[in-house]
Amino acid sequence: MKKFMNSAGTLAQDSLEGFVAAHDDIVMFGAGRKYVRRRILSPGKVAIISGGGAGHEPMHTGFVGYGMLDAACTGHVFTSPTPDHIQAAIRETDGGAGTLLIVKNYDGDVMNFEMAAEMAMAEGTHRVETVIVNDDIAVERSARGTGRRGVAGTLVVEKIVGAAAQAGATLDDLRVLGDAAVAATRTMGVALKGTTVPQTTRETFLLGPDEMEVGIGIHGEPGRSREKVADASAIVALICTHILDDFGSLDGQPVLLFVNGLGGTPQSELYLVFGLARAFLQARGVIIARSLVGTYVTSLDMAGISITVTHLDQRLIGLWDAPVLTAALRW
Amino acid sequence: MKKFMNSAGTLAQDSLEGFVAAHDDIVMFGAGRKYVRRRILSPGKVAIISGGGAGHEPMHTGFVGYGMLDAACTGHVFTSPTPDHIQAAIRETDGGAGTLLIVKNYDGDVMNFEMAAEMAMAEGTHRVETVIVNDDIAVERSARGTGRRGVAGTLVVEKIVGAAAQAGATLDDLRVLGDAAVAATRTMGVALKGTTVPQTTRETFLLGPDEMEVGIGIHGEPGRSREKVADASAIVALICTHILDDFGSLDGQPVLLFVNGLGGTPQSELYLVFGLARAFLQARGVIIARSLVGTYVTSLDMAGISITVTHLDQRLIGLWDAPVLTAALRW
Repeated sequence: MKKFMNSAGTLAQDSLEGFVAAHDDIVMFGAGRKYVRRRILSPGKVAIISGGGAGHEPMHTGFVGYGMLDAACTGHVFTSPTPDHIQAAIRETDGGAGTLLIVKNYDGDVMNFEMAAEMAMAEGTHRVETVIVNDDIAVERSARGTGRRGVAGTLVVEKIVGAAAQAGATLDDLRVLGDAAVAATRTMGVALKGTTVPQTTRETFLLGPDEMEVGIGIHGEPGRSREKVADASAIVALICTHILDDFGSLDGQPVLLFVNGLGGTPQSELYLVFGLARAFLQARGVIIARSLVGTYVTSLDMAGISITVTHLDQRLIGLWDAPVLTAALRW
Repeated sequence: MKKFMNSAGTLAQDSLEGFVAAHDDIVMFGAGRKYVRRRILSPGKVAIISGGGAGHEPMHTGFVGYGMLDAACTGHVFTSPTPDHIQAAIRETDGGAGTLLIVKNYDGDVMNFEMAAEMAMAEGTHRVETVIVNDDIAVERSARGTGRRGVAGTLVVEKIVGAAAQAGATLDDLRVLGDAAVAATRTMGVALKGTTVPQTTRETFLLGPDEMEVGIGIHGEPGRSREKVADASAIVALICTHILDDFGSLDGQPVLLFVNGLGGTPQSELYLVFGLARAFLQARGVIIARSLVGTYVTSLDMAGISITVTHLDQRLIGLWDAPVLTAALRW
């Protein structure tokens, strides 16, 4: 699959330049044009920083703005940003109330964000805490790390924590809240076509005309099983059953239902999946209190979807509903 | 390419059901669950109605809401909605000030919307006017009609006319404004991969590994020429040169620059194209006064982009900036 790019090596940075130009009312480049920060910071507020490899757009740069992230650090495609860039973002956005890092559970990201936190704290003037997101129930171990991976649920955690930070929560409160939001969130995905990375312009895994990959991640890696492709109702039932089993029971409980596109799936199919997932969960007594449908946490051009369910309580509903003004999310 | 669907015949309606369920704070089904209308209509306001075949999502259903459309009529994939559904939408949304139909220039759409207008006017209580959108400079004639096609510029026309209607403009004013917005708008697109229609799950045209299709439309039809695939800078130069030539001159003029994804192109590539197009136009003296980047007017899963330029004046800038609250556009 071909790509609109000038070269594989410059795709991520060229794209970032266009992003900042398109949204310069909300964001600006930080030091060295290596990360994106809010144009207007709020002194006295805990800074919320996330990031990871490029290729997951609009995550994370699209989530920088009022009510969500203060900065997003981006590396090359599927490659963690380096600790010095993360450290610079911590330094530049620190409003005096400390910094919370939201990190997806991949070894590279966890290591680099941890190193950046230590380097920043060694300066003597920064307090830094970290929340690790691991919402993907598909695999307990992957080529990129130990434990569950961080996938689309990262958006939910960043929205909830970002809203609480905007409302003045303390760093300690935010870390506890972030861990609670992670614990309340489960995701699983299915792909019909693998990711085409810019270096090779070939798919990272090849599926036959009647195959689908169940439990895919967001780095073009295979999932937990390859199965015969099924109709949308069967795919939804498969994913939602795994999610409900993992929760134990959600009978009578309010949830956020988030259907996410992996990059190459048209919106018509996302809404179709949403309608089926909503009906499936409602038939099992789950209350769909909030919903989100769209292409938010991607794996370049992968044709795939993921379903995320977050168990809500009154506080989480209020934080989800709180105003947000970013390139990708606004209400 | 496989699809998340239960059957090709039900994809459009199943998707519409999910869409309405996801956005029931903004929209609801009209008569017979065949079109989507605003939940809250504004009496005394001119009703703005658009529509066309399914497969272009989020257009048009995603543009229904405050400041934009009152109703969107959707047919099967790439098939015009029938006149009786359009007539029902006219009847249901008429607030006493008349109805403006915004129609993309394809024979099927033009004929069915025209017939619906006549049927509605024959009832004796409705005034109906029509604006035809034909922003695509790539071809002067296609398999689906005579003259230039209506493509991504349709979003711009619907936003501008919708804002003026919301502000209380009369039906006659809106028709003149709509024609002016069309005349101020030019679009051209390029595809790297054709559309996969649900009936066959095969691509409508096959490109070799080093080919791109220049001047593609939004129904999976081929464009004006097949060329050797080029890097993003060359593609942007090709499109923007055609657009500038068609305008004559835009030196010193303010424009809206809208980079649109055709459905299967990741956001990173759209922003990359935007950055290059912005620089190209600025170097030729064009003032990028407003911008929009995203996947809005699609051809199912086609990997492609289009660039739209609208020549702005103070009135158009004000109407573009006016508040809008729809599923797909909100500010």
